[in-house]
Parts: sequence; C-alpha cells; structure tokens
Amino acid sequence: PDLTMTLPALRAAYAEGTSTDEVLAQVYARLEKIADPAIFLAMPTLEQAQAEGRALGAYDADKPLWGVPFAVKDNINVAGYPTTAACPAFAYVAETDAHVVARLRAAGGIFVGKTNLDQFATGLVGVRSPYGVPRNSIDPLIVPGGSSSGSAVAVGHGIVPLALGTDTAGSGRVPAALNNIVGLKPTLGALSASGVVPACRSIETVSVFALTIADAWEAFRVLCDYDASDAYARKVPAPALAARDAPPVIGIPDAASIRFLGDEAQARSFAAAVELLRAEGCEVREIDFAPLYGVAQMLYEGAWVAERYTVIEDLMRTDPEAILPVTRQIIGKAEGMSAADAFRGIYRLKEMSRAAEPLLAGLDMLCVPTIPTFYSLADLEADPVTPNSNFGTYTNFVNLLDMCGLAVPVPARDDGRPGSVTLLARAGQDAALAVTGMALERAGKRRLGATRWRFAPPPALPRAEAERITLAVCG
Amino acid sequence: PDLTMTLPALRAAYAEGTSTDEVLAQVYARLEKIADPAIFLAMPTLEQAQAEGRALGAYDADKPLWGVPFAVKDNINVAGYPTTAACPAFAYVAETDAHVVARLRAAGGIFVGKTNLDQFATGLVGVRSPYGVPRNSIDPLIVPGGSSSGSAVAVGHGIVPLALGTDTAGSGRVPAALNNIVGLKPTLGALSASGVVPACRSIETVSVFALTIADAWEAFRVLCDYDASDAYARKVPAPALAARDAPPVIGIPDAASIRFLGDEAQARSFAAAVELLRAEGCEVREIDFAPLYGVAQMLYEGAWVAERYTVIEDLMRTDPEAILPVTRQIIGKAEGMSAADAFRGIYRLKEMSRAAEPLLAGLDMLCVPTIPTFYSLADLEADPVTPNSNFGTYTNFVNLLDMCGLAVPVPARDDGRPGSVTLLARAGQDAALAVTGMALERAGKRRLGATRWRFAPPPALPRAEAERITLAVCG
Repeated sequence: PDLTMTLPALRAAYAEGTSTDEVLAQVYARLEKIADPAIFLAMPTLEQAQAEGRALGAYDADKPLWGVPFAVKDNINVAGYPTTAACPAFAYVAETDAHVVARLRAAGGIFVGKTNLDQFATGLVGVRSPYGVPRNSIDPLIVPGGSSSGSAVAVGHGIVPLALGTDTAGSGRVPAALNNIVGLKPTLGALSASGVVPACRSIETVSVFALTIADAWEAFRVLCDYDASDAYARKVPAPALAARDAPPVIGIPDAASIRFLGDEAQARSFAAAVELLRAEGCEVREIDFAPLYGVAQMLYEGAWVAERYTVIEDLMRTDPEAILPVTRQIIGKAEGMSAADAFRGIYRLKEMSRAAEPLLAGLDMLCVPTIPTFYSLADLEADPVTPNSNFGTYTNFVNLLDMCGLAVPVPARDDGRPGSVTLLARAGQDAALAVTGMALERAGKRRLGATRWRFAPPPALPRAEAERITLAVCG
Repeated sequence: PDLTMTLPALRAAYAEGTSTDEVLAQVYARLEKIADPAIFLAMPTLEQAQAEGRALGAYDADKPLWGVPFAVKDNINVAGYPTTAACPAFAYVAETDAHVVARLRAAGGIFVGKTNLDQFATGLVGVRSPYGVPRNSIDPLIVPGGSSSGSAVAVGHGIVPLALGTDTAGSGRVPAALNNIVGLKPTLGALSASGVVPACRSIETVSVFALTIADAWEAFRVLCDYDASDAYARKVPAPALAARDAPPVIGIPDAASIRFLGDEAQARSFAAAVELLRAEGCEVREIDFAPLYGVAQMLYEGAWVAERYTVIEDLMRTDPEAILPVTRQIIGKAEGMSAADAFRGIYRLKEMSRAAEPLLAGLDMLCVPTIPTFYSLADLEADPVTPNSNFGTYTNFVNLLDMCGLAVPVPARDDGRPGSVTLLARAGQDAALAVTGMALERAGKRRLGATRWRFAPPPALPRAEAERITLAVCG
C-alpha cells in the first residue's frame, strides 16, 4: 500500500500492525523510484535502518516520533557519518549525534540519510553543491531551492515525513516554497546548534521540513530543548497548540514595496492567500517593507559574511580550490573587512532594527510571499547570483531581526506552480505562526509536496485555557 | 554657611529661602578654594550659571532636581560647549544637549561644567589626559581614578552633588572608590547614549556620581528614559525604592579567587563590608571568580578594542600624534583585527557568559571590592598599564555580562583610605542594588567624599506593595 508520509498516517499504520521494516522498505523503494542520486549524500543501508527500527522495540505511544523516518541536512552531525557541508575537503566523520538528531532519535525517530545542500549552507538555490543538484520534486526544470535542498526535496517526494534543515538567509523557507511543503524556521536559539556546522552562528537556526504544519510542530516540540552547551541557546516556548482568542493583526507589504519581479501569477497567489487570512477574520494591514529590505541587504553586504568566513578560514588559506568559486567569491568578501567594520555593521543593524520597530508595532505577525518568483536551472546557469539574491527578498531580514518564520503551502498558482506564503513574528511567537498557518493550510484543495496525497485537516485546535501563562524570550 | 551638597540638604536650603544664586556662588567658591584647574575643562561663568538658575523661576517641588548643580563628563554633549573627549584634535562644539543632560535640565538641574577624563574614556586611572590630572579629592598622591576623573573628584570635594560619567570597563565605579563616593552604573541601555561620544558603544553606559545612594537614585530616576533614537536603548525599570521582602543572596569571590594584590587593609575592609551584609541578614555565598576574570580579559585583549577604534579611526589616520601614546597603543591593537576576529570574540564571550551562568544561579547579586588596591601617581609614572589593568579586576567583566553595578562607600580602611564595595546584578536589577547598598551605606561612621559632612541616613524605605509587578528587560 502507498503509505502517506505524515505523522498521523504513520501512527495509524503502526496501530494497524505495520512494522518499521515495512515503513522503511517504502522509504527506500520511493527513493529508488525517484532515482535522484543528488538528494542523499550518505545513508544507512535499508538493513541498517531496519535494524534501528527494530531496536525501538514494541510501539510506544509515549515516544512522539516512534518509527518516524527522518533525514538530516549534511551540515548536522550524525554519529558515524561524514559531515561534509557539501565540501569534500571539509568533511569529517561525526563521533556523536548533533543535539537535535539525538532528540529525534530519543523520541523514536529513525535516521535514514544525510541530505545535499548548498556548500556551507551558503545559497538559496540548491545548485551550489559538488555532489550535484537534487531535482526539484515538483518540476525538474526549477531549482530545488537551498541551501537545504536535499531535505526539502526528500520531504516533497514523501520519502520521509520529516527532515532537518538550517536557516540563516532563508534556507529553511525558500526550498519549502519550491517543493510545496512546510518550512518551520524556529526562533533563534530554540533548537540547539551543538553538532551543527555553523554558517552564520549568531543568526541561524536548525529548521524543520514536513508535509503539514501539525507534523512540523510535533517535531519542533521534540526538538525545542534548552541546551546549555550551545552558547546561543535560549529558552523558547513550544506549547501544545491552542486556538487564538482573537484573530491576529497581520502586516503585508504595501503596493509600493511588494516585489514579484514581474511574476503576476505569484502576485495573484499571494493576494488569494491574503484573502484567505481576511476570510479567517484576520485584520490585514499594508506596511512599507523598504526598511526590512534595508536590513536584508546587510546579510551579504555587511559584516555577517565574516561569520561564514570564520568557518572556512583554514580551508580558504590551505586549499581555496576546494571551495566552489561562487561560494568563495561570496564568503571571500570578508577578507577585506576589519573588526571595526564588523562593529560598524552591528551598529548599523541595531539602528535599522530600531527604525523598523514602529513599522511592526501593533502587528501580531507579518505575511509575505515566501519567494517573489521562480527560477529555473537555466536561469542559474546564466547568472548564479541574482536569482539567489532575489529568492531572499522576503527571507534575508528575518534572522537579523530575531523573528521566527513559518513557510506554509497555499493552493497552487493558476499556472500549477506551488503557492507558498511565510508568516513571520517576533522571537518566541512560533506557536502563533503555527496556529494561523493552519488556517491557511486547510483552505482550498491541495496535494502534499509533489505527491498525490491530499491534505487531511487535523482536528480543530482546543481553546486556550483561561489561565494564560505569559512567556518572554530574553537574549 | 557651609551647605552640604546632597539633594535633601539643598531642598531644605531652598525651602528656607536660599537662592540658586547663593548655592551657585558656593559651588564656584569651593572650586576656587580647591584650586585644581584639571577638574573642569569648560564651565559657564558664575554669572551665566546664576542666570540659568534664575531662569528656573520660583522653587518647584515637582522638579526633582530643582536648583541642583551638576557636572558633565566631557565626552557628553552640552549645547554650546566643546566636547573634547580629552583630545583637543577631536573636539567639536555641541549644538544640542545630550539626552541625559536635557533630562537633568528639564528636572531643574543647573549645568556648571564639563569634566576631565581619560582620553576617549579609555583608562581607569584618570592620568591619561592632555589637560592634566585632577587631584584625587582624598589624597593627592593617589590617582583620581578614571576615566570619569573630573566628575568623581568634583563630587568627592562636594563641589556638586551630582555628576555624569560614563562606564565601559569601570569608569563609573573605580573613581567612585578612589574618591569615597557613590558610583551608579546603570543597566546597559537604561540611559540614552544620544549625544555621548562612544568608547565601546555596545557595552557602555552613562553613569551617575553622587555622595549618597539616595541622591544617585533620584538622578537615575530622572535620567532613565527610553530614547528610541538610541539604537542601544532598552526599557529598564527605575521604580521608587522599597524595602525587600527578604534579604538577598549575595555571591562574593572565594578565598582562592579573591585578589587584593597584597593589600591587606583592602582585604580587611572588604571582609568588614561582607560582615555588614551578613549582619543585615543577607546570605553570603563564596563563588569562584575565575570565569568572570576570564570574561574581563576580553575587554582589552578581545575584539571590543575595535569598537573604540571606530570612534578614532579617522584621527588615527590623519593625525595619530593627536592621540596620547598610551591610548594609541591600546586602541591601535584593533588595526590588526579582522571582522572574522570580531565575530570569534563575540562567540567566545557568548560561551564564557554561558559558562558563568551556573556560577550566578541562585544569587540575587554579587558583592566585590570596587578596586583590589590603590595606586599612586608615581606608580602610574613607573608603569602606565599594569595598575590600570589591576584597577579593572572587579569591573571589566560587568558590562560584557550585561550586569548593572553600584559602587558604595563603606567605612574607611584602617589606614584611613576610603573603603568601597560594588554590588552587581543582572540587567534590570538596579533598584535591588540601591536597596542593599543603602544598608551598607548607613553602617558605620563615614564622611561624604573628601568633605567633613557626615552621612545623614535617609528615612526607612517603605515596604513593597503587595501587588508586585514583574518587569523584564529584553535585549
């Protein structure tokens, strides 16, 4: 039988007596059928994975991810596997699982593979890997999106219900949009970075790909665990979801600042999503996004490139040819930057963040197109940089401003390409995004990822308890 | 009459009909008697100050600082006066008052002068100024302390009841210890930096010198005002003081990590202060200060020197001789530092801060000697750097760890030198420090600063209201 790769469907299958052996056999059979060697960079054999599944013992409902196969972006350590960050010269064999991988395993998850990525997680396109380009799960002419390309494609195909990515500039959101799946980019510090190759340590996070928000949220609740050994860890709430008392006030880009780069189908798709939010009772306010674009520009033009440089400095000195030319060009900009430049950049960000505050005042969240338009593999061959920059239009500013984000699939565009919007909110508001995202997710007819599976609406959320606990996130 | 320069004494004098003309005449007469031309770098004439006093009109009890003369460190703008930062080549005439100066004036304060400092607020000694060295108010052989040398000496002599300083490494605390006065170093971001020449913008604050904690706290309440135009401003509570429900748990350096550099009198003075805290019912716990000293080292050896460099970069290029050799040597270290070095420094600080967390867990505050020992002008002539570094033993880590501090005079040492301890707590806990500091302040017999005035205990604090509001400070 064609098992739907969502957590409720898996649980139902296990309840009916399906074995982890059978589930894992389906995972591997699907991958074989898709026949894309660029998705996974390393995997256990089916037999190894099945042995891990059997080691879970009898079905255990207390383990929220019991028997759930998951994939891991190859800049995150899995014990015994190489971590390449898509750079063979950088690769090392991890001795222990990253904290997040250990969390998934402890919750009953079964590791099935390390996924391809833009080298050193630098890129939003998914074509910057010496291990080839994972084919977009929806349309092989379109780029898969990056940097978490393999993870997003694996989930888009329904090979696994969950995959880990990372997100600095939008690597956990852009590939979600391009593969018709959910991309949950948590509040910075919510998920441990222990055992993760950093890209931009002060402004990045591990992220979650799934076919549905409910699945992504379940994984988030498992993953969200204060890890004191990660200096950037923060205590972030990960509550069970509950319905809002009142619909949120949502900011969207105003007509003067919204950017679709001429893609009218994308504009119509976003307008339709906004109408869905209004139909749900949300108050939608148009705001000027220019200050946010100003922040976004700092990510690659400002001092933060030097964070990426700290990761590859040794390699740049000893073996620069081991790094892709485009990656070297981007990160190499840091070589001319002084420590004083770094602090000037930090000051400028502080000032721009402050300038953006009045813009965000009174809003519960923002809603943006996840990407302004689509790019093909041919577009990237012609120009490896501009499409990448454009993909970051609505994503680059998010971590710099310490916001959380959730890329949500919406009904397909009128040309059949996947629709996606991203909800954004202040640090710690992850649950609010999930709740509002679910309203978008259940509207219209939609298939999951690139599969034929239909979205099955989850049960209605319970009302929030009268006794509310206010939670603050402090830096 | 010899008017005591405290706020209650001034108010009493005004209530009895004393005029601002008379008070200001005393201010100028005292300065003339002290005959130290290195305290003030610029002043209004007595007539100008008196005109400002008369412009206040009739006594107005609603203005908390009505008729209170104040001095301003010369890295803080006062409209119409040069701001030199103790570097003539850097000087410019300020067009408007710094936000903090405007706050003091709006509350009825009367500006009486700009005070000397260690050039670019770099130093804890007070001897690094081309405008001469303000004489220590207690003992002219001892350094005045810096960088807020002139402000501390002016208050120590009772010339003014209030003076503004700034504090990155300890410039608002060390000179307080050396002049037997109170140094209130607020939570970072509580006081606006608008119109202040930065030293280390991300980790510094304007500070307050006064003869008593009550006076410093009144000034703090006037000054603490969220200024959205300062990108580093934060909303910090500045409540009226109220007695604690229970005595605090206070951490002190353990025997292995406490440092007096052989100064036994200082050790005895600190031990006596700790006994006072115990007598007040405080629970005192000895902790290992080594992790905090590790943080402290980053201030001058790590990337933060580059923050200072951003301020003087142009001058370093165009006219390096305009900068004192010792200052140039310290700040010039930034020239070899890359942006990647800066981020590595920031990571290291994050890691060291995290490592210090268990140390501070369960403590309400710390109590440290403000300085480990005293240094003379001769010591500094022999070695301009080591004594400066030693002065920072208990101060350098404080802003890096986002703590607030209060330097409190305690009874004189058995050799007659002033006693001083500093209370330190997490951001936002300024009021808690003031309340506990007051318990220390009223213990034992003590004169105010270098004056003959005795400390007059303020009325007992009211109990906190049953309905407590919890306030959080977020970055």
